[in-house]
Amino acid sequence: MKDFKVGIVGFGNVGSGVVKYLIENDTVIAKRTGVKPILAKIADIDITTDRGVIVPDGILTTDVSELIDEVDVVVELVGGIRSAKKIIMEAISKGKPVVTANKALLAEYGEEIFSAAEKSEADIYYEASVGGGIPIIKVLREGLVGNQIKKITGILNGTCNYILSKMEEEKKSFAEILEKATELGYAEADPGLDVDGFDTAHKAVILASLAYGEWFGMDPVHIEGIRGISLDDIKFAAELGYKAKLLAVIKNENNNVQIRVHPTLVLSDSQMAKVNDVFNAVHIDGIPVGETMFYGKGAGLEATSSSVISDIIDVALNLKFGSHRRIPGFRTGKQFKKLLKMDDIVSRYYCRIHAIDKKGVLAGISETLSYNNISVSSLLQKEKHDGEIVPIIVITHETKEGKVLKAIRELEALNTVEGKIKYIRIEDY
Amino acid sequence: MKDFKVGIVGFGNVGSGVVKYLIENDTVIAKRTGVKPILAKIADIDITTDRGVIVPDGILTTDVSELIDEVDVVVELVGGIRSAKKIIMEAISKGKPVVTANKALLAEYGEEIFSAAEKSEADIYYEASVGGGIPIIKVLREGLVGNQIKKITGILNGTCNYILSKMEEEKKSFAEILEKATELGYAEADPGLDVDGFDTAHKAVILASLAYGEWFGMDPVHIEGIRGISLDDIKFAAELGYKAKLLAVIKNENNNVQIRVHPTLVLSDSQMAKVNDVFNAVHIDGIPVGETMFYGKGAGLEATSSSVISDIIDVALNLKFGSHRRIPGFRTGKQFKKLLKMDDIVSRYYCRIHAIDKKGVLAGISETLSYNNISVSSLLQKEKHDGEIVPIIVITHETKEGKVLKAIRELEALNTVEGKIKYIRIEDY
Repeated sequence: MKDFKVGIVGFGNVGSGVVKYLIENDTVIAKRTGVKPILAKIADIDITTDRGVIVPDGILTTDVSELIDEVDVVVELVGGIRSAKKIIMEAISKGKPVVTANKALLAEYGEEIFSAAEKSEADIYYEASVGGGIPIIKVLREGLVGNQIKKITGILNGTCNYILSKMEEEKKSFAEILEKATELGYAEADPGLDVDGFDTAHKAVILASLAYGEWFGMDPVHIEGIRGISLDDIKFAAELGYKAKLLAVIKNENNNVQIRVHPTLVLSDSQMAKVNDVFNAVHIDGIPVGETMFYGKGAGLEATSSSVISDIIDVALNLKFGSHRRIPGFRTGKQFKKLLKMDDIVSRYYCRIHAIDKKGVLAGISETLSYNNISVSSLLQKEKHDGEIVPIIVITHETKEGKVLKAIRELEALNTVEGKIKYIRIEDY
Repeated sequence: MKDFKVGIVGFGNVGSGVVKYLIENDTVIAKRTGVKPILAKIADIDITTDRGVIVPDGILTTDVSELIDEVDVVVELVGGIRSAKKIIMEAISKGKPVVTANKALLAEYGEEIFSAAEKSEADIYYEASVGGGIPIIKVLREGLVGNQIKKITGILNGTCNYILSKMEEEKKSFAEILEKATELGYAEADPGLDVDGFDTAHKAVILASLAYGEWFGMDPVHIEGIRGISLDDIKFAAELGYKAKLLAVIKNENNNVQIRVHPTLVLSDSQMAKVNDVFNAVHIDGIPVGETMFYGKGAGLEATSSSVISDIIDVALNLKFGSHRRIPGFRTGKQFKKLLKMDDIVSRYYCRIHAIDKKGVLAGISETLSYNNISVSSLLQKEKHDGEIVPIIVITHETKEGKVLKAIRELEALNTVEGKIKYIRIEDY
């Protein structure tokens, strides 16, 4: 059995988890795989703080280049963009395989990174970049390799899912729950990356590129976060049998690809609706496999460590067998399929209309919808609860988004309708 | 790009599915993996019946040995034991890699087969043997390779899950739904392999061996089927917030392993309870990954084809890179961990007691349970519905099975209790 030297760059939360479980589970890993990963170097700016794990003497360093030169795999757990990119590019240029959990970096600079890795024939593995402990990258690249991927939808951000779950559970507003989440450390001091949907979008780009074999980058992604979801929306949705989730939606219909991230209603009875708190789930619809779903913790040092270690082992086996780049990386370069405009996507919609409670209001709304050929699947008219304003919730059948937006503009122009109409897309399973 | 010659033995339902999707998806597979599987030979006793797929000229044969000699991978889709074993052993003895979906064969003769494959250094892949289209073998062998596996539970048999789902949905007895399932082709004419739990047990043996790295075989598996589940049980369970599922339960507690298959109640609100009809799901609890779940179609030519094709590609990549047996097989030979006796397992229990409706009946039951240190979590006493007999449902806290069985024997001896007490284990998520 060949020892395999692991170098970890970034000895923070995830880094210390990987160290802990690489050491704790080394026997079972060696038994299963025939390779024994040895923790050879850990690099960090700070090598004095106690991380609660005991590491072998003399392996801590502040010199990343030294680490890259001495190890068989470089595990980048620094996070962020600038130094992480520098570390990865240096490793790749030296032909060293890289394992990373850095979705932001891959989504933003994937083209450059994967292209460099291709040139120097270095392995790059990134299981922990999407879905935490769920081995979704391996599932897509290998387990479902024989499938045409029709659709991927996923809850990919634990912070957003925690906030939406708690808003419903505790009947509190977005702002109140966000404050609590920040106190508990579930949300960052600057929560924008999570709640504005960017983190989910980074992951969606990676999944879309795996599904369709082309590097899309961030430009084609439609991104909406969850700040606009009110407690009223969550309550009305619940009455109609739905739950609100921040979903990534990736579809290929007739070679038109759409990649979008937005709050979405899913039937309360669906598996996706049961994904609560910091859990993630990815639903994949493929031909021939049909519907599949993969569920697990989306973040945290434990779940992330599981994925990082799985990547380390893949690299180790590739080294043992000389099979590096066994699964090819993305083809880089602009090879985009046709990307669908948001106006052209087809979905069902939840619309919350604030109507003035007088005769003929429903007739006016129905007429406008009908004139626009929008067919109503269900309608909920609440009793007055805000002076003369009454909320009317319309759920539509499948319609092109452009048509729905046109109808919404016309509805907003009615003198029986007050203010803006809120709409949320619906995804059916 | 190297062509890779695929030989399929068994041109039935699954065989024709694999042929169809290998041909339909060959471009996407080649783009993703850099290998192009070419359908080179198909062997079957019957090579004249139209299977609804067009195959290249001259590739059909009745001569299995000829096929084995000419191809790069032998895909065994014959099913059953005798000829399937002969085919696989011949392929292995000639050093040819094997892909199989045959769980019964692997569970019964795994030791012999894996040992032969080890000697001749032939690859053997079997993704389709468990969980249909769910890539659960790859998830366990590779995606979660860095984990200690605490527990695996799964719904692994579509026929049983269909029957239990329909019994609840249509409020009909096991016999009625089985008859319907047989008519619809969801159950075999001889349904024993499915409804008596053996098929689930075959799959449980494979999962347990992957989780714990030792070949267990069928002997240590406790097997109960679903024939004993009455509509009353399903109704009472539903009232108490549970659903009945046939579960495989594989646990390792302090190096004591248990492998069991039996009807199990799960909370109606759990993800597992939402797995209906012919879907399968596998829930894995590992350290560090925590709780994960994998869901998809458990059978059918489409889902099975997805897994078979994924295996074919793994073999093709191993051939391309000379990395055969990249992931080692099971170590064979008796290396059993300590196997827990059923009396020593710890679970919660649902007990249905038929009591005679007279004063002091509840007191007598409570006293017996309390005397045996069995703590009651909930109790449901139904109104009389069968003369003087009233069903009392007791749900216990966690208890050793031996203690529960002793208490049940004592309860059955009470003169206020009529007949046998039905008990069903409960699994919590």
